[in-house]
Amino acid sequence: QDKVENKSPLVNENLRKFLNTKDGRQVAGLIMDFLQVFHLDFSLAVFQPEVNALKPLDSREHLSKELGLPDEGKKKTTPLLLELLRRGRQKS
Amino acid sequence: QDKVENKSPLVNENLRKFLNTKDGRQVAGLIMDFLQVFHLDFSLAVFQPEVNALKPLDSREHLSKELGLPDEGKKKTTPLLLELLRRGRQKS
Repeated sequence: QDKVENKSPLVNENLRKFLNTKDGRQVAGLIMDFLQVFHLDFSLAVFQPEVNALKPLDSREHLSKELGLPDEGKKKTTPLLLELLRRGRQKS
Repeated sequence: QDKVENKSPLVNENLRKFLNTKDGRQVAGLIMDFLQVFHLDFSLAVFQPEVNALKPLDSREHLSKELGLPDEGKKKTTPLLLELLRRGRQKS
């Protein structure tokens, strides 16, 4: 069976610390959401285990609530990241 | 030689459209930046060709200027995405 292993646990110590913060988990969750929305299955197959091995991430639904971003429900054609970017821009 | 090929050009038509927008390129650039900051080399090796095949992305320096996010210069220990998340939160 295939098993993805971390190449360098030392380097990923930074990622581990990052994922132990709420902000960090949200950021990683936004990336996961992006990869899912665009069906980047290869990227997802690598990224998901790299991150999940360190910290399980929240769902898109959870994320959108936490961040107050509009979730279009079951469609999921727009990454939450795009909403965040637009919000950041409008308010800056 | 290794060559990463797109699994499904049909599915990635959505991504192509997305990357043809400025917002889309910025979002993809933020993800690339995250993967680079945390040295997620495996993810990067898959994501970068998947995206760059469709549209070359801007550098972190360019992105941080465009989005008005603080770039800590050469250190690059914090993903720009984190700054964006924090800005979005403060202002909402």
